[in-house]
Amino acid sequence: MAQTTGMERLAADVADGKRRALARAITLIESQKPSHRTDAQALLGHLPKGRQALRIGLSGTPGVGKSTFIESFGMFLAEQGLKLAVLAVDPSSARTGGSILGDKTRMDRLSRHPNAYIRPSPSQSHLGGVGRRTREATMLCEAAGFDVVLIETVGVGQSETMVAGMTDLFLLLMAPAGGDELQGVKRGIMEMADMILVNKADGDLKPVATRTCADYAGALRMLRKRPRDPEGFPKAMMVSALAESGLDAVWADIQTLVKWRRETGVWDAMRSDQALGWMRDEVHSGLLAALQNHTKAGAVYAQLEADVRNGALAPSAAADAVLQAFAHNED
Amino acid sequence: MAQTTGMERLAADVADGKRRALARAITLIESQKPSHRTDAQALLGHLPKGRQALRIGLSGTPGVGKSTFIESFGMFLAEQGLKLAVLAVDPSSARTGGSILGDKTRMDRLSRHPNAYIRPSPSQSHLGGVGRRTREATMLCEAAGFDVVLIETVGVGQSETMVAGMTDLFLLLMAPAGGDELQGVKRGIMEMADMILVNKADGDLKPVATRTCADYAGALRMLRKRPRDPEGFPKAMMVSALAESGLDAVWADIQTLVKWRRETGVWDAMRSDQALGWMRDEVHSGLLAALQNHTKAGAVYAQLEADVRNGALAPSAAADAVLQAFAHNED
Repeated sequence: MAQTTGMERLAADVADGKRRALARAITLIESQKPSHRTDAQALLGHLPKGRQALRIGLSGTPGVGKSTFIESFGMFLAEQGLKLAVLAVDPSSARTGGSILGDKTRMDRLSRHPNAYIRPSPSQSHLGGVGRRTREATMLCEAAGFDVVLIETVGVGQSETMVAGMTDLFLLLMAPAGGDELQGVKRGIMEMADMILVNKADGDLKPVATRTCADYAGALRMLRKRPRDPEGFPKAMMVSALAESGLDAVWADIQTLVKWRRETGVWDAMRSDQALGWMRDEVHSGLLAALQNHTKAGAVYAQLEADVRNGALAPSAAADAVLQAFAHNED
Repeated sequence: MAQTTGMERLAADVADGKRRALARAITLIESQKPSHRTDAQALLGHLPKGRQALRIGLSGTPGVGKSTFIESFGMFLAEQGLKLAVLAVDPSSARTGGSILGDKTRMDRLSRHPNAYIRPSPSQSHLGGVGRRTREATMLCEAAGFDVVLIETVGVGQSETMVAGMTDLFLLLMAPAGGDELQGVKRGIMEMADMILVNKADGDLKPVATRTCADYAGALRMLRKRPRDPEGFPKAMMVSALAESGLDAVWADIQTLVKWRRETGVWDAMRSDQALGWMRDEVHSGLLAALQNHTKAGAVYAQLEADVRNGALAPSAAADAVLQAFAHNED
């Protein structure tokens, strides 16, 4: 009971916009400890319902200027009085031990702005955990009253799919490039993007950026129209994070897109689908965890794996045996 | 007991290479009926162990000449005395009701050759079911003594990943095309391919095919070397299914690749990984089926979905409730 009261208070503090409470809450949901998970569930249950931030996914391979863009675009929003939270999804950090937002000095001005909150990604994580953690951190930021939650990821594929599955719109930041290099965009990622932003459209690179932008615009026109898009979307446009140009146009287009989706019901439908998808994912991983923790089924699994590996047992027969051990709930 | 004996006999007939038994066995494993599934497991359990066919995955978008290639290449193998089975993975058939191998007249000569066996894909199926069915059909064909099992799929992405995950090597059939169209190959699919075959390298298209092949060869060189490849692989080469040219070179390269993989242990490692992956997939889908069939958990799931859909309940809380209902095994 004391536990729950503690979480009620923490939820209220988060809802009041207290930064230290938000930081503590995110640390809690990032923890894998079972008792912390219980607390985290209680915390999430006590959050006020109905507050929605605009959730923006942002991807781009290293070198395209993501940090500079987030800093410039974030400052542009913050200066307008909008409250912005920046989260990071970085599955690679589990391997490298690095962290794409580990160093707040990457976004020096933004990190000191009172309207902005930047949360570095923890260095140890598996992709499944990253998904849950980022979704829950987003919920916390929404409850804390942020207007925009920007989720940054690296351009490696699987994490893009995940981030696109938990955001309202998806921005792809690209560098100016020659024709051949255009092939470098994975088609699947291009199909996720609502807007492709060709960065570094300044100085000597401006002409290349103009051509690159036209190429991407052409490529986008070749993709089939998605039911979630108004006329003219997805689109490609030029920005310069360094010169801080084009940011107003990006924000205007984002608002056009959001307005259209809200009016047509697409927004709500996407949110519902994402929530149901999240529920499904949690059920899946919960079932697998239950199986792994099931003394008998876990043992049978480990034992039969060897037989399957060397071809002595058909995989489907092994799976059947595991499932039967699990069904006989003699734990 | 009589049941099992029946399956023992069927397994023996399949192992003796009796075509009618093989057809009956595949029909059995394609069935979703629970009693048929039990029989199918018994059947698979009675198959002789240790017979391995060369499992080849083949993909290519409509229009590249897949049927003509399979007919030509299949005849080339069959005429050498090799026994060839052709299976199809067509997830689109679930939507369209069509079937990519539904009409054996597509491969008229091959379907009448005594060394060849062509199995049309059933018209109703979901992708998960397609995976299990194709793996089990492959097991049956291996037990029946086929030397090569060729699994054909359409170039749509998800089915390629699945087929690449159940075959020893993966061929990608492409049409001759101009530079711009090269972008049409999904990068992920190109990364799966062991050999890219540029078809229609005959008549007027020969020069275009030559250029296309050089382009793909260049693109393949840009990809990182995979540990499963000897020097020179993955490679791009030209064929003409119509003129039946280049088929001997394709077969020679396949044999080079197979020999290298066998000698280096890559072959066995890939087979083991695939078997373990199959076991894992079966356990996953079995767990989900158990949840769906669990009276209480199934009801809780259906009930809470509505709350999650309209945002009244956090997805993770709903998932927790479902998992708890499932854990209290009061069925």
